[in-house]
Amino acid sequence: MLLDTILRENDIKQIPSDRYDALAEEIREFLISKISMTGGHLGPNLGVVELTMALHLSLDLPKDKIIWDVGHQAYTHKLLTGRKDNFDTLRKYKGLSGFPKRKESACDAFDTGHSSTSISAGLGLVKARDLQGSDETVVAVIGDGSLTGGMAYEALNNAARLDTNYIIVLNDNNMSISENVGGMNKYLNKIRTGDKYLGLKSRVSNALMKALPQKGATVVDGIRHFKNGIKHFVIPGTWFEELGLTYLGPVDGHDIPAMMRVLEEAKRVKGAVVVHVLTKKGNGFSPAEKHPSRFHGAEPFNTENGLPTSPRKSANYTDIFSTVMIKLAARDEKVVAITAAMPEGTGLKRYRNIYPERFFDVGIAEQHAVTFAAGLAAGGLKPVVAIYSSFLQRAYDQILHDVCIQNLPVVFAIDRAGLVGSDGETHQGVFDYSYLSAMPNMHVIAPKNKWELSDMMKFAVALGRPVAVRYPRGNAYTGLQEHRAPIELGKSELLFEGSEVAIFAVGSMVKTAEEVRKALLEQGISPTIINGRFIKPIDEAAVLEACRTHKLIVTLEENVAAGGYGEAIAAFMKREKLDNDLYLVAIPDRFIEHGSIDQLKQEIEMDAPAIVKGILERIR
Amino acid sequence: MLLDTILRENDIKQIPSDRYDALAEEIREFLISKISMTGGHLGPNLGVVELTMALHLSLDLPKDKIIWDVGHQAYTHKLLTGRKDNFDTLRKYKGLSGFPKRKESACDAFDTGHSSTSISAGLGLVKARDLQGSDETVVAVIGDGSLTGGMAYEALNNAARLDTNYIIVLNDNNMSISENVGGMNKYLNKIRTGDKYLGLKSRVSNALMKALPQKGATVVDGIRHFKNGIKHFVIPGTWFEELGLTYLGPVDGHDIPAMMRVLEEAKRVKGAVVVHVLTKKGNGFSPAEKHPSRFHGAEPFNTENGLPTSPRKSANYTDIFSTVMIKLAARDEKVVAITAAMPEGTGLKRYRNIYPERFFDVGIAEQHAVTFAAGLAAGGLKPVVAIYSSFLQRAYDQILHDVCIQNLPVVFAIDRAGLVGSDGETHQGVFDYSYLSAMPNMHVIAPKNKWELSDMMKFAVALGRPVAVRYPRGNAYTGLQEHRAPIELGKSELLFEGSEVAIFAVGSMVKTAEEVRKALLEQGISPTIINGRFIKPIDEAAVLEACRTHKLIVTLEENVAAGGYGEAIAAFMKREKLDNDLYLVAIPDRFIEHGSIDQLKQEIEMDAPAIVKGILERIR
Repeated sequence: MLLDTILRENDIKQIPSDRYDALAEEIREFLISKISMTGGHLGPNLGVVELTMALHLSLDLPKDKIIWDVGHQAYTHKLLTGRKDNFDTLRKYKGLSGFPKRKESACDAFDTGHSSTSISAGLGLVKARDLQGSDETVVAVIGDGSLTGGMAYEALNNAARLDTNYIIVLNDNNMSISENVGGMNKYLNKIRTGDKYLGLKSRVSNALMKALPQKGATVVDGIRHFKNGIKHFVIPGTWFEELGLTYLGPVDGHDIPAMMRVLEEAKRVKGAVVVHVLTKKGNGFSPAEKHPSRFHGAEPFNTENGLPTSPRKSANYTDIFSTVMIKLAARDEKVVAITAAMPEGTGLKRYRNIYPERFFDVGIAEQHAVTFAAGLAAGGLKPVVAIYSSFLQRAYDQILHDVCIQNLPVVFAIDRAGLVGSDGETHQGVFDYSYLSAMPNMHVIAPKNKWELSDMMKFAVALGRPVAVRYPRGNAYTGLQEHRAPIELGKSELLFEGSEVAIFAVGSMVKTAEEVRKALLEQGISPTIINGRFIKPIDEAAVLEACRTHKLIVTLEENVAAGGYGEAIAAFMKREKLDNDLYLVAIPDRFIEHGSIDQLKQEIEMDAPAIVKGILERIR
Repeated sequence: MLLDTILRENDIKQIPSDRYDALAEEIREFLISKISMTGGHLGPNLGVVELTMALHLSLDLPKDKIIWDVGHQAYTHKLLTGRKDNFDTLRKYKGLSGFPKRKESACDAFDTGHSSTSISAGLGLVKARDLQGSDETVVAVIGDGSLTGGMAYEALNNAARLDTNYIIVLNDNNMSISENVGGMNKYLNKIRTGDKYLGLKSRVSNALMKALPQKGATVVDGIRHFKNGIKHFVIPGTWFEELGLTYLGPVDGHDIPAMMRVLEEAKRVKGAVVVHVLTKKGNGFSPAEKHPSRFHGAEPFNTENGLPTSPRKSANYTDIFSTVMIKLAARDEKVVAITAAMPEGTGLKRYRNIYPERFFDVGIAEQHAVTFAAGLAAGGLKPVVAIYSSFLQRAYDQILHDVCIQNLPVVFAIDRAGLVGSDGETHQGVFDYSYLSAMPNMHVIAPKNKWELSDMMKFAVALGRPVAVRYPRGNAYTGLQEHRAPIELGKSELLFEGSEVAIFAVGSMVKTAEEVRKALLEQGISPTIINGRFIKPIDEAAVLEACRTHKLIVTLEENVAAGGYGEAIAAFMKREKLDNDLYLVAIPDRFIEHGSIDQLKQEIEMDAPAIVKGILERIR
């Protein structure tokens, strides 16, 4: 095995060039075999095997720096930098991260996870290099999907001013997480399919060169300009060149020697240079080539046919959202839906197929998604914006400034909220209660089970004001079906009446509260369980009542403590001089790494046994 | 006066076209005269007098929609829509807003305040129009400065897919708030100065047309392509056209008939069309033409010479920051500074003049600013990012994801924090304690006076971890000079030891606490006053101690309650079972409109008299 000879960075340089393809093949097999067991971002990684090899062959790591945009495509990079033996632990608790991590390797120059950050971060490393007089090469690797994010453009606009070298590799696979969208995608498509177009160049420009000089001196000045014009026209990359960047490419992203040649050329450019590399997502594994969206981030699968090893049996919250959106749209033609590059992930794909005119995939562009929704609402429609919790962070200002100030009826359907598990700290959706609750006019609600998500979506669309409905990754809870009191503004739902201890739980933690109750009942304690429903506004009357009749108040939320549900209740209790003890259970003030959600909850003492213990300590 | 005949929208259409220039002149005089008294965004408004008139002449308001990006340039629009008589109250308490407001007029289609939102919002209005089958014209008016913001690009990328009309007016004055920056600016400059370049077009293309056909049929196909190439090369706007937008212009933004002609043409385009209008910021008032940055947002001034009516006598916090940055940079060559289009506003202009290599103005691009800073920090430098509180909201995700997760030593110097006064709800910086305190690894501090800002900046740069230093608009407080205990991580500062009442105040509210103390002393009550200093982490030991020896705890902060300083103390008190009464003073949960800061604090009961009253009610 060639791969076994690569024990650390730069070992790849010992491989003879005629064995590159064989090594690429081994890497692909390794990745397919490992990811089929652990799950992970298969498609993006299969696409960049040769690109990663070319980078490692052309650069000197860790002195030179590679910043992987998003970072889910860095598996080959990890393999080539001594982390091969950790792949069985990929994305598992205490195991190898699915993303670059500076603390994992000196060859990981910058941590990533969210989209479109690499050009900015790389520009920082370039300026730090120049100011400190060193000479490393800095390379940002960004996908065409990530290029739909505005901050990538902000960074390009700034990189255009550089007069020292900075290489931006555009890894163009013609895909975002799903199909890529927008004007930029169309433009790149034109370049991709531009061979014939290129063929014209020599013929026509030869003709020109012969023809024009005969016309005399008056056009001589023009010719020079014209040559530029021809270059801009016939050679692709005008858009980048007009912005002030050098453009090289397109180059075949599965041809290692070709990429190495272009990278050598790119290193000589004094300024920012875009190297346009054409790759194929899922390359070398036919199920992933055929279904790039499904294999973007895959669960464990069968390597023969690509089918999931353990097919999902029960509906997750995304499925429930998917179904209710179609109902809502059928009932009210003003309902429209927006996603930021996630028609599959958010469950809006079915909706899109039925209501294509009322569906908008804006690309990885959360800021635009939200203000666009605000515009739709100002225009009289009822937009539902479906974005994962941690990605919605990108639109903080737009939610506050464009939706809340005008009090516009935009509904935020926030999926993957709370702990998300194997993606780790960049993807944990544990801040949304806090950042949304601080915004005037906003309402924040979270369902306890699948039926409540349906009911809450209906409530939210009908409310006519800003509302965020927040639900977790994974199977929708099917317990507590018998508890389905109508959703009323600002009202919680009493699930079990008890004494001594009153537990206010929101969202996913209602299920935990139920488990806690069972354990406490065994100890002879019958707690009151309240489904909080509204994180904002909190149900003050219910807290008052609970304080009147219980010794201990417990709050449970899958969100950081600061600015969350429990703190709002704590502040209310202080205001009302309610001296009951308060046991506030929330995510601690540190970043939570990857692992299964159950493992993580155990670690941070947010599982039922830990909470039971906490309650018993407080009441005994 | 022509202006007196314009009582409502569309009245301008009664003005004969040969009187347009006279009306423009009247509007300019009116604006200069009014703004010289009230203060306001003079430069941006003088630049768009004719553009606004052309839009009003070409459109049918309020049916047609204009979205003003940022919105500080909408004064002429307000004049032409019946709000002339309110101009004496401009930006004053309960008076006319300095920005478009839907509740102020049906002709204000969408509220703005922050940069780069208009194209997204307008696209929402366009889609709402198309889905509901109406036929109004939608126009977004965006400056070239706002085009440096990534969300504008996200919106352009999406607008490129439109097949119905949408007009995007690029109001190009070659300026952001200060000089504009980046590759896009250079590109627009090329178009602006492209007359000579254009002159070539006819000569060269005529020559070509004559020359090429003689070369025979093999190049015939090429010619058609070449004509496109010529068009792209010689006619400006390639960048926009490549992205999939139609480009019209450039057109003189002070030539009303020319703009009306282009707008008519633009209305016929089936798709998104960029109308490139060249304007001059401050046009018609020579001090504003000469000093566009100073007259971007002006205090009241003398109309003869443009000098401020009441020159500032004492230093504001921005000045203090300015001075300490120069000291820090002199002491440590790793210190670098970043601003997002605000070298003057943030006080970094002097620093820039001394350390141009270590200064970065990235344009209106807060997201890039923060991740770029993270890259600089990862590269070994000590970046200080200076951004106003409400604009930093744009970079929420980047602070969390790119700075805090990696625990990088980035210092945030947050100016205009707390209530900002006359700019109103879009600019109030009253959320930063909340959104920053929820982020793991972040430290949040606020100075009580000018000396403490200096000390805190030094502390922050030395800490080597993420820190936000937050200070308000306006004069730096010069009281309490004798209290200058060294800044220690997580420690508050005891200012006055008293009994019964312990007041924990942070930032600007320490001065208020001092006033409260004076009033209470007169009532025979001697409160303890603690300068909290650290909003995160709070000084738990000081709270414990205060609770041991005082009946009532008071917290004062210029931030919303949710997730702020007081709630953190409330939660701590509940956790530690500290049953002292807590009086939490913070910004209420609603958007605070414009007015003087003193008026606003009175309204929301955050001035000293209201707080004294609140304390007396609680202890008597």
